[in-house]
Amino acid sequence: MRPQDMSPDEFRKFGYEVVDWIARYLDTTGEYRVVPEMQPGELVDALPKSAPVKGEPMEAILADFDKLIVPALNHWNHPRFHGYFSVSASGAGILGEMLAAAVNVNSMLWKSCPASVELEQVVMSWLRQWLGLPESFFGLIHDTASSSTLHAIGAARAAADPGLRTEGGAPGLVLYASEHAHSSVEKGALSLGMGQQNVRKIGVDAEYRMRPDLLSAAIAADREAGKKPFCVVSTVGTTSVTSIDPVKEIQAIAAREGLWHHVDAAYGGVAAMLPENRWMLEGAGEADSLVVNPHKWLFTPIDLSAFFCRRPEALREAYSLVPEYLASQENPRAVNLMDYRIPLGSRFRALKLWFVMRSFGYEKVCRIIRKHCAWARELAVEIAAHPQFEVVAPAPMSLVCFRMKGPDEPNRELLEQVNRSGVAFLSGNVLDGRFVLRLAIGNLGTTREDVFTTWEKVRTLASQA
Amino acid sequence: MRPQDMSPDEFRKFGYEVVDWIARYLDTTGEYRVVPEMQPGELVDALPKSAPVKGEPMEAILADFDKLIVPALNHWNHPRFHGYFSVSASGAGILGEMLAAAVNVNSMLWKSCPASVELEQVVMSWLRQWLGLPESFFGLIHDTASSSTLHAIGAARAAADPGLRTEGGAPGLVLYASEHAHSSVEKGALSLGMGQQNVRKIGVDAEYRMRPDLLSAAIAADREAGKKPFCVVSTVGTTSVTSIDPVKEIQAIAAREGLWHHVDAAYGGVAAMLPENRWMLEGAGEADSLVVNPHKWLFTPIDLSAFFCRRPEALREAYSLVPEYLASQENPRAVNLMDYRIPLGSRFRALKLWFVMRSFGYEKVCRIIRKHCAWARELAVEIAAHPQFEVVAPAPMSLVCFRMKGPDEPNRELLEQVNRSGVAFLSGNVLDGRFVLRLAIGNLGTTREDVFTTWEKVRTLASQA
Repeated sequence: MRPQDMSPDEFRKFGYEVVDWIARYLDTTGEYRVVPEMQPGELVDALPKSAPVKGEPMEAILADFDKLIVPALNHWNHPRFHGYFSVSASGAGILGEMLAAAVNVNSMLWKSCPASVELEQVVMSWLRQWLGLPESFFGLIHDTASSSTLHAIGAARAAADPGLRTEGGAPGLVLYASEHAHSSVEKGALSLGMGQQNVRKIGVDAEYRMRPDLLSAAIAADREAGKKPFCVVSTVGTTSVTSIDPVKEIQAIAAREGLWHHVDAAYGGVAAMLPENRWMLEGAGEADSLVVNPHKWLFTPIDLSAFFCRRPEALREAYSLVPEYLASQENPRAVNLMDYRIPLGSRFRALKLWFVMRSFGYEKVCRIIRKHCAWARELAVEIAAHPQFEVVAPAPMSLVCFRMKGPDEPNRELLEQVNRSGVAFLSGNVLDGRFVLRLAIGNLGTTREDVFTTWEKVRTLASQA
Repeated sequence: MRPQDMSPDEFRKFGYEVVDWIARYLDTTGEYRVVPEMQPGELVDALPKSAPVKGEPMEAILADFDKLIVPALNHWNHPRFHGYFSVSASGAGILGEMLAAAVNVNSMLWKSCPASVELEQVVMSWLRQWLGLPESFFGLIHDTASSSTLHAIGAARAAADPGLRTEGGAPGLVLYASEHAHSSVEKGALSLGMGQQNVRKIGVDAEYRMRPDLLSAAIAADREAGKKPFCVVSTVGTTSVTSIDPVKEIQAIAAREGLWHHVDAAYGGVAAMLPENRWMLEGAGEADSLVVNPHKWLFTPIDLSAFFCRRPEALREAYSLVPEYLASQENPRAVNLMDYRIPLGSRFRALKLWFVMRSFGYEKVCRIIRKHCAWARELAVEIAAHPQFEVVAPAPMSLVCFRMKGPDEPNRELLEQVNRSGVAFLSGNVLDGRFVLRLAIGNLGTTREDVFTTWEKVRTLASQA
């Protein structure tokens, strides 16, 4: 028999055990405390200081997983995990991950694994159609939206001045995004050596949407000062309040000014797939790049960020570098993913998305997303009607931002109390200088009852304050 | 019942089916052709142009996986996959991945998931000890060595001149690596906006190791020209020939010159864990950062790159950026991973490494790696003794580089023939202007017989040429 760490029978035995655990977990995640009760360092202290010299039986490892790891989890897959943005590991997505782990291929080149490279093209094309983007968008998968956006900015730089690849630096180049854009835009720019001072944060309107007039003015002022505007990032579904920048107007400015336009739809892109929400991405088909994260609201286990780019040649300009040991025949149908990105290799991420898209289908995805959005609207109305509370921003997707009227401190305390209760998990934010609570709805297992159980917990704790 | 995409019974049914598939696959990977017989685009053409509107049954998806995906795989988990570097998905690693997919947590902050953040610290400390690195090294997990090395260079830049974060650019900064360093060093530098022209490729000795005298001379010449040397990357196990740069001497130069020293041990670090190979990393304990990839030679499914840094404050300097919605209490034991890296979020990668390290234990890891290296040495001797072939570089780890004596073209043809045969997969390289074949040994399932079956196939095809 071939050397393996376990026999086929052993793998089957422990595999079944793990599958049983997962089946039970998916069915009962709602019965766990969402957030663990523990102090920083407790798990570190509970585990051995060094790895074992002799191998340990799988029974012991699985027992420790249950005894030590599970109680330290913050259950992102919990139906009342409403913090940050809510995510889901669907059964279909997990099955896809299992097979991807087993075949363990690396998608750097077409010839390094045709199956994973080609399936990535297929699912990205499927997703592109769900987003209503034209065929001219080339798609590839990254780990997170931070990486997708960084790659977009790098491509924008290469498109603006191909010589910078050789010379380095970014003399005079300026990037624009709303003051509510995700931190990954600024982090991407500074990581790429663009300089934090060259990121302009454009003001927003009363509904937290980037103001095109302020964008135009900022570009004009920079040109006046001898700077070179090169890129603008609009956001469809900001992290603070899921506000939706006017993509079409921003695209018109980008086109007029010769700027690369990157659309950050990491969260909101999935909402925009619904027929009634098509307006959210109007104009994005003319943009240069777009990111949407199936690992957020599309039932796909983390990590999987979908990156689309209408100018793949700029990605190659920015990132292609082929050493001899990876030299490959030229064939237009043999895509070499390493030419379009920083990481040389990547997992077979497309597989889980293929499982998810096929097993759900477009209609079911729409049905679930529509429900999440409806509950958010319903909840926002109810919160707004409550004398002690206020809703602080519109809820065009599935995030409700609210607070108790009055000072910040009781709101911070309320957030801690809700999370400490274990009933639900919310996150906080500072909006217009005031502390607010964020309640996101997006887990596959969430019911209307969960949403209102959370709200009840919030109200009860607030009334006792 | 809670809304899920499948009932617990359904998940159990399909989960068992997938586990059966994996158990069979791990047992029989050696019976597949290593490389598929297909043309670019064949899989794309075989799949529907659009995703389904209505969900499809899991039976159909799994059947298509078998019928369409598997025949298009290049089987990286095959015992005669000897191309690039050989990798393994161990049973233990796969079980860890299954659970990570199900709990689906995001390790951006301590409070976003204590379990995954703390387990990452624990396994990275375990691995650090296996590498013989001192406790002062802070460890975190990236997707690939490309990302780890890019983060190292970014931290080096921040350490050299903290003002660049704000101003951008990298005026005068110069980076050094051997001419056999991995392409990720140059790609990292150019992605970061350091400028490709500011990467110096230092010459090597007869065994392809960076020459410290040439490094010193290059640094002196750059200083003379008003440049600012800021970083040197040494490699332990180069991709072309697994040569081992003299880390200790390079470290002495880095210390004297005030350069950040990053050690790229992505592949070779695992070999260096063996007591008899400790010399390979001598001096690395004083370096600033180091990368080793458990997803290469440590039986861990892709992706998992382990990055160690002795100056985590430089990583924070380069990458920390905390928006209000992610603000967190300060507690020295509550590590917020997002402060040390570009991606905001990350999967629970530590879990699979914990499964692997515990289930193998140090002794078994050493036993297997030692075997791989011994077979490589044995094979190198046999090839060198064959009148038609020559070994072109020493084989200090588990990679044998060789060629048929004479011109390149028959060697290129030989490589194609071996791969087309389906018996084994090798990769090629150009070394000192000549085309050579690379045969890497590193899969858990590989036997001595596999290695010599591959060699026999090579010889037979060569004799028919």
